[in-house]
Amino acid sequence: MYAAGDVRVQDVPDAAIVEPTDAIMRVTRACICGSDLWPYASMERSEAGQAMGHEAIGVVEDVGSQVAKIKKGNVVVMPFASSDGTCTFCREGLPTACVHVGFFGNNGTNGAQAEALRIPFADGTLYPLPVGEDDALMPSLLTLSDVMGTGHHAAVVARVGPGKRAAVVGDGAVGLCAVIAAKRLGAEQIIIMGRHDDRIALAREFGATDVVSERGEAAVERVRELTGGDGVHSVLECVGHGASMETAIGIARPGGAVGRVGVPQHTEIPGSLPAFFGNITIGGGPAPVRAYLDELRPDVLAGRIEPGRVFDRNVGLDGVPDGYRAMADREAIKVMVTP
Amino acid sequence: MYAAGDVRVQDVPDAAIVEPTDAIMRVTRACICGSDLWPYASMERSEAGQAMGHEAIGVVEDVGSQVAKIKKGNVVVMPFASSDGTCTFCREGLPTACVHVGFFGNNGTNGAQAEALRIPFADGTLYPLPVGEDDALMPSLLTLSDVMGTGHHAAVVARVGPGKRAAVVGDGAVGLCAVIAAKRLGAEQIIIMGRHDDRIALAREFGATDVVSERGEAAVERVRELTGGDGVHSVLECVGHGASMETAIGIARPGGAVGRVGVPQHTEIPGSLPAFFGNITIGGGPAPVRAYLDELRPDVLAGRIEPGRVFDRNVGLDGVPDGYRAMADREAIKVMVTP
Repeated sequence: MYAAGDVRVQDVPDAAIVEPTDAIMRVTRACICGSDLWPYASMERSEAGQAMGHEAIGVVEDVGSQVAKIKKGNVVVMPFASSDGTCTFCREGLPTACVHVGFFGNNGTNGAQAEALRIPFADGTLYPLPVGEDDALMPSLLTLSDVMGTGHHAAVVARVGPGKRAAVVGDGAVGLCAVIAAKRLGAEQIIIMGRHDDRIALAREFGATDVVSERGEAAVERVRELTGGDGVHSVLECVGHGASMETAIGIARPGGAVGRVGVPQHTEIPGSLPAFFGNITIGGGPAPVRAYLDELRPDVLAGRIEPGRVFDRNVGLDGVPDGYRAMADREAIKVMVTP
Repeated sequence: MYAAGDVRVQDVPDAAIVEPTDAIMRVTRACICGSDLWPYASMERSEAGQAMGHEAIGVVEDVGSQVAKIKKGNVVVMPFASSDGTCTFCREGLPTACVHVGFFGNNGTNGAQAEALRIPFADGTLYPLPVGEDDALMPSLLTLSDVMGTGHHAAVVARVGPGKRAAVVGDGAVGLCAVIAAKRLGAEQIIIMGRHDDRIALAREFGATDVVSERGEAAVERVRELTGGDGVHSVLECVGHGASMETAIGIARPGGAVGRVGVPQHTEIPGSLPAFFGNITIGGGPAPVRAYLDELRPDVLAGRIEPGRVFDRNVGLDGVPDGYRAMADREAIKVMVTP
């Protein structure tokens, strides 16, 4: 990406092992993320450009001399962040705070909207799958690299549990996965807040029980009506705007929790006073998707959850620029890339 | 209180039963709260004035016809908020979100810096004590009406636990009780952030292991030095300023939690981005002190914790105006009132 709206497919030098802990992964599936749309909307022109893509599944083509667990030929999930797998934070289940964390496409690392890329700390980063590279479950497995793990993180932080009322703010791919996560963790009521018919329909299939299409104060009132006046125990904030956070706090029940996973586009969190007087907890951040793979993978492999249904378009590398446009125009929910 | 700095002791009509669920409590001990200092610093002049005081212990003098549990003659703790004891939120342990919640001194209810006052929902609000009205433990028991329960709330929300590193922002009475709470819940390291020698000395006796007197960025750096670079698991924010919240987020370890109990003087929470990228949880609010009494009371009665040591001055009702001045001038940590 060279500027807002300017995505190009270019030849770059072949990925190569640099550190002995690296692997080279051939990308078999990648995708375009809602968070890629922020720079697509606003990036200033850059001479050097920015490598894009942080979600992928691939096949390991080569490993460095210190890579012990990951083997050539493994089919692997590449979580959106690389992590060493051994530091305190990794051991505590927060690999996105790894002391060696890296975010694909940033700080000179490769992006995954590519034929292949270098994977730092391959043993810590990559997660092997017991399937072939063209398995029918590939779309759903691909979501474990980001959006399904991210929706799950919102649900965990928002303390979704059996019998609880939950609301999902945002009907993008993460919001839709958040609906799956809320349902999976036992929420009794799941309110999806959004206004795109196709996404709402999918949210209902994923388990949403109610739809709120209003915004702002009207949305808060509508959620209160749907929840006996109290609001919801758990708010899964999957947008990242100041306005969506304000709505999230407004619809939370006293003592409730907001799990925010939309990358914040605001430097302050609004609603300090209502959050305080309602004893509402606000948490979340970059999801530790690597740490969630053990828990989520079996449900995908068994077909109990189908997050891959968020993909409604598939393109080759040449189709990536138009894929951005389609997602930005809300013509597609999420675009899969098969290099 | 009639304006900033203008506190008067006046005769008012005797407290009387209004609702059948009321009780009349003769105040045996009350006190002045750090939160009373906000209006003492900034209240606009009011003709009607504002009744003050929300922390007390007293003796029940009369009960309404529907009061069943509380009896005439009971020595009782009066938590700073009244609550019905029966609604969903009370049953869930969040009486400060009770559907009938009232905050003493506000919305026409009596204040506790008085000889006696009317207590709404006496059965839900008051907590009987197995001691005489002049028991030697009275100062510590009095803190269960607010500051000890509030410090405990900060610790609970900040997820203090065995082996954890904690920091307490603010060395007022709540901050000092937060040190007690952090120690009581097993924190291994407790950093007190403040700059008043007498308070710091007391914090050390309560269990603080380290002192940070710097502010802002320097304070953040100092805490990082004391914690191997990572910050603390648990931040107990006992001030309520935007700047103190920013510090609180700055010193939290990735994946850590901030429990805020200082009444916010800011409408937005600063540090949205660092809190997000660190997966830091921000929670807290008016402490459900009524719900914490079962847990904290035995430790006070057994002398295992001595939060009453935060009182370093005792006045009669006539001494209340000077008590405000002494606390505002940081001449006293917390002033007890014996009517």
